[in-house]
Formats: sequence, C-alpha cells, structure tokens
Amino acid sequence: MTNAMNAQSLGLRAEGKEIWILDQRWLPLKEEWIPIHSLEDMIYAIKNLQVRGAPLIGVAAAFSLAQLSLQGKTQDQLIKACLELEKARPTAVNLMLAVARMRSLIEKKESPELILNLAQEIFLEDVELCRRIADFGQNFVEKNDSVLTHCNSGGLATAGIGTALGVLRRAHELGKNIHVWVDETRPLLQGARLTAWECEKFEIPYTLICDNMAGHYMAKGKINRAITGADRIATNGDFANKIGTYSVAINCKYHKIPFAVAAPLTTLDSQCLHGNNIPIEERIASEVKGLKLHHAELNWAPHQARVGNPAFDVTPAELVDSWVLDTGLFKKEDIHVGRHWWIRI
Amino acid sequence: MTNAMNAQSLGLRAEGKEIWILDQRWLPLKEEWIPIHSLEDMIYAIKNLQVRGAPLIGVAAAFSLAQLSLQGKTQDQLIKACLELEKARPTAVNLMLAVARMRSLIEKKESPELILNLAQEIFLEDVELCRRIADFGQNFVEKNDSVLTHCNSGGLATAGIGTALGVLRRAHELGKNIHVWVDETRPLLQGARLTAWECEKFEIPYTLICDNMAGHYMAKGKINRAITGADRIATNGDFANKIGTYSVAINCKYHKIPFAVAAPLTTLDSQCLHGNNIPIEERIASEVKGLKLHHAELNWAPHQARVGNPAFDVTPAELVDSWVLDTGLFKKEDIHVGRHWWIRI
Repeated sequence: MTNAMNAQSLGLRAEGKEIWILDQRWLPLKEEWIPIHSLEDMIYAIKNLQVRGAPLIGVAAAFSLAQLSLQGKTQDQLIKACLELEKARPTAVNLMLAVARMRSLIEKKESPELILNLAQEIFLEDVELCRRIADFGQNFVEKNDSVLTHCNSGGLATAGIGTALGVLRRAHELGKNIHVWVDETRPLLQGARLTAWECEKFEIPYTLICDNMAGHYMAKGKINRAITGADRIATNGDFANKIGTYSVAINCKYHKIPFAVAAPLTTLDSQCLHGNNIPIEERIASEVKGLKLHHAELNWAPHQARVGNPAFDVTPAELVDSWVLDTGLFKKEDIHVGRHWWIRI
Repeated sequence: MTNAMNAQSLGLRAEGKEIWILDQRWLPLKEEWIPIHSLEDMIYAIKNLQVRGAPLIGVAAAFSLAQLSLQGKTQDQLIKACLELEKARPTAVNLMLAVARMRSLIEKKESPELILNLAQEIFLEDVELCRRIADFGQNFVEKNDSVLTHCNSGGLATAGIGTALGVLRRAHELGKNIHVWVDETRPLLQGARLTAWECEKFEIPYTLICDNMAGHYMAKGKINRAITGADRIATNGDFANKIGTYSVAINCKYHKIPFAVAAPLTTLDSQCLHGNNIPIEERIASEVKGLKLHHAELNWAPHQARVGNPAFDVTPAELVDSWVLDTGLFKKEDIHVGRHWWIRI
C-alpha cells in the first residue's frame, strides 16, 4: 500500500501526486507533456483529445480521481468528479467502466491509499490485456512479413503496448524482421500522425501511404498481411473499426492476403449478434471538406458541399482470417463452433 | 478564315488576340482568370499547374503558338517556342501531339491565319471526342443511379465536356436523376477540389467522401455504379489511372457493382499489350506527408517518414465491365474477340 502514484505509458505518466498527459493533438510535430493538477485540467484534456483511445481515457480518469482523493477532496466532491468525468466523452465504454469501479470505493469512503491502489490496478490490467493480445497475435505474423495497418491501435490508445499495433511491435521485438505499411487514415490522420510516430519511436521499419494506395502495393506483392484494431465485435465475428478498415479487408480478400483483427475481450459485445446492428457514428462535414490540426486549418472543398463522414465501418466475418483477443487467437472454425467461441475452454 | 481567336472551355478562353486561363490551383476557393500575353506566361501556367489535364494542355499550347504568330513573331522564334512548350510538361503526350501539328505549319511558313485555324481545329476536335464519349457513355448510366467517380476527368481537364465526368454530366442533362459520389482523391484532392467544383457548377447532385469510405457506402446500397477516366489503356483492356482507381474497381467487384472506364481512343496505347508494362510515376514524399495548396501548407507526418507515392495504379481488365471510347462503348466480349477491338467495324 502506498500513497504515491506510479505509472508510465506512452501517453500518460503518474508520479507521486502529479499526472502528466502527452498532448496527442500535436503529435508527431511536438512531444509536449501537460501537467494535470485538477479535475478541470483532466476534463479539458479528455474533451479536447489531448488524451485519446478508449482504454487510456479510462485509466486517465481513474488516476484523476486518485489524485483528487490524495488532495483531500471530500466524498461529495469525489462523487461529483465521477459524474463530470463520465460526461467528458459519453461514448467511451472503458471510461464508464473505470469510473464506476472507482466510484464504488468512493461510496464506501475508502482511504485515498485504497482508491489510488484501484487506479494502479486498472492501469496494470490494461497493460496485461495488451501483453496477452500481443503474445497471442504475434503468431499471426511470420518472419519478413510486410503488414498493413489502419488508424492507431498502439501504445498511445492504451496503457500498454497496444492492440493491433502492439502485435506488430511484439513481432518486431521478437526479431521477425517485419515492415509496417501505415495507412494515413483520412479524415483525422491517426495513421500518418500517431502510428507513424510510434513506429519511429520503437524503430519499426514502416512506409506511410494514402489509404487509396494499399491495393496497388498488394498487387505488387509489397504487402502480404494486414491487422487492425476494433471498436466493437459482434458475436458472429463481424466488427466495427475506423472508417476504411472494410476496404482494407476487401483488398486483402481480392489479393488472398490474411487479415486479422485485434482487441481486448471487453470489445466483444455479447448482446450484438450481427455487425449490421452496430450503430455507426456520423461526424461533422468539416473534417472531410478540409483539415483542422492543432496548429493550422485548411479548407479545400466547395463550402456548401454535401459530405459523408462515417467514423466507422463494419467488416463482415467472412473477410477476417484471425480474431486476436486477450483470450487467444481464434480462426473461422472456432467461430463456427458457436456460442462463446471467444472463451477457450 | 479569320485572324481572331475564338474558343471557350471551362478552363481556357481565347478571344481575339487574348488567351485567358482559369487558375486551377485556386479552385474551388477562387475563380481567377489569368491573362496570357506571351510564351513566358503560358509556360509558367503549364509548369505551375494553373492549367492541367493532358488534352487541355495540348489545346493551350496550340493557342499560345497561334497568339505568338498573330503577334508577328518570326519562324525562328515560333520554332523555338515549340521546343520550350514541349519541355514544359515532358510526359503529356497530348502536348507533344498538338505542338507537333502546329510546328508542321510553322515549318512551312504558313500564314498566321492558317496557324490559328489549326489551333481552333485542335480545340474543336477535343470538344468532339468528349461529346462522343459522353454520348456513348451515358448508356452505361441508368435512371436514378448513384455513381462513384475518382479524381477529375471533367471539363477542367479537356476542351470539352470531359471524359468520365462528361458521361455523368450528359446523363444528368438527359434527366436521368443521378447522384454522383466524389472520392476526394488523396494526395492532391482533385476530386474534392475540381470534381466537386464542376458538380456545383452544373448543379449535379453529389456527395464528397474520403477515398476509404466508398466501400462502406457500397455495402449500404448507396453507390450502385462507378466510372473513372484513364491515362493509358493497354490492348488487353487493362488501364492506368489516378492512384486509388484500382481500389474502387476491387470494391465494385466485391459488391457486384458495374465499373466503367472512359477515355479518348488516343489513350489506347497499341504498343502496350498488358497493364504490367505501363510505367508508374513515383511522386515526391511531401505530397503524402502533408498538403500544399496554393494558399497554405500543412505537414503532419514525422519529418523523416519513408513514404510511398505512386501517381497511378493499374486496373486489370477483369475488374472492368465497360470501356467507353469515342469509338463506342465496349464490353468484355468485344475485347475477347481480339485485335483492334477498339474500332467498331
């Protein structure tokens, strides 16, 4: 038992009573760590995407509550903080789960030390989930593979090594001599900005391409495998992920290239039987008509242009070769066996 | 016979002794017409992409030579101008063809009136090729179709109505009640900037999307047809076009959506037997690591990122349902008949 925070991930640091957030809006142009001293600081960081990635947001909220408790805030103040943190990103399920667990201790008036211990536990759990995904997933990757990935599913989105990008990092560490092809991931460029930054950091050889170039490189034999993360997985194996994932999977199918999806088991929605039941968030038109980064803004399309901007698409199970969860690496035949295929007996 | 220039297209105007170019770098943010008074003016406009599209560049060069002739330049000066115009965009075949035809009159010391007449003829020929492509091609489009296109193959790239986008404009004019889905076309955004601008201008209903979204809308039944232009067609029906065209065709195949390519017969390279023989231009990395428009510049990827940036990809004939040329609309069975399928007897 201790009353000093102690956690370090790619996007979050907690030391003693201090929390630091790596501002992801600036990446990769600038690596700026922002100190978090108060509830207001953390809510601003979450709302403004300085910290992002559903698992990492949950961890950040837990540490925020631990910090407030160490600062001597009252039970009433801490419960109010729980409500405000939940509202900061209302769609992030991991945020709700993490805050709910913290709140149960707060309601029991547990000591700051116990509350902090739970934040540390939530952090370490996420590290462990990522580790297991990476260990199972690296079996999907063979020596000298060139693997395409889309969006960012790495250490910046989690407390640990990441999900799909974590698999690639593990394969790289094991000396498999892989090359990563990074889709830039329009409209918000998580590939070009965040995945490219992680590849640089861990010295994983990579090539950045526009999303529409993957097919060309598959035809030329330059890409022989693909892996992405997932935002929700249905019980039939269909899954939702960042817009463009579906096209990657279709291109893989046409070129007979194995395609895998990697995510923690918590991403599997046992109430959702089919990908068509997953609601798709539509985002604002300005993201497609131009680009707004932290430091500048460009608009290039007609002002009045009608725009489509779905944040996610659904990839049917028929296009997937492997499902990598923290419970194992699953194949089509596992899913066809039926109920609760995601738990290996 | 006249000694006054008289031509008007979306991107070029010639009146009396004056030539005007619509600066395509600024579109759609500003419609700025630039006067061309000299050889230097025209070479600057071509080199800096103020005027673009292989057919339109050829026409612009022809009018530039006519203008110089009307200004009383000597034969030596005119021949020197031919050489400099050819060098302005060395890969544009239409530019070479147009200049070669003008030069043959200059070498015979023909009158300014005859030289001007040939420029007018080259202009009208391109208008007629586009008209024939549009007339044949509109048969590919059915009432109430939602048609995806990629890059810009419209009036801004030709003297006439365009090629693939010309087909869609004709279908719209014929009251087929179509909706055009416009791929933004990374990295240079010819779809978001130029095709969207043309759709606005001709009041063709359209929706702008990022390149990686097309598959999602096909799965949802929102897109039921696709058509693009071509930069080179091999005799087996394979063709090269703007990067991303291949992915559009693969997505069409997976969703059982008809895919067509439209281009003048001059795009068919009778020396090229197979798409694999078409050389693919690799462009500079900065186009993928960021975006440079006329008015601003943004960079978002790691400075040292290794980048892939092929300007074109090759779509195999097996993914194409219809080839629209100015000689007719051709199907797979026409190509399988063999030699010279592109000329209907």
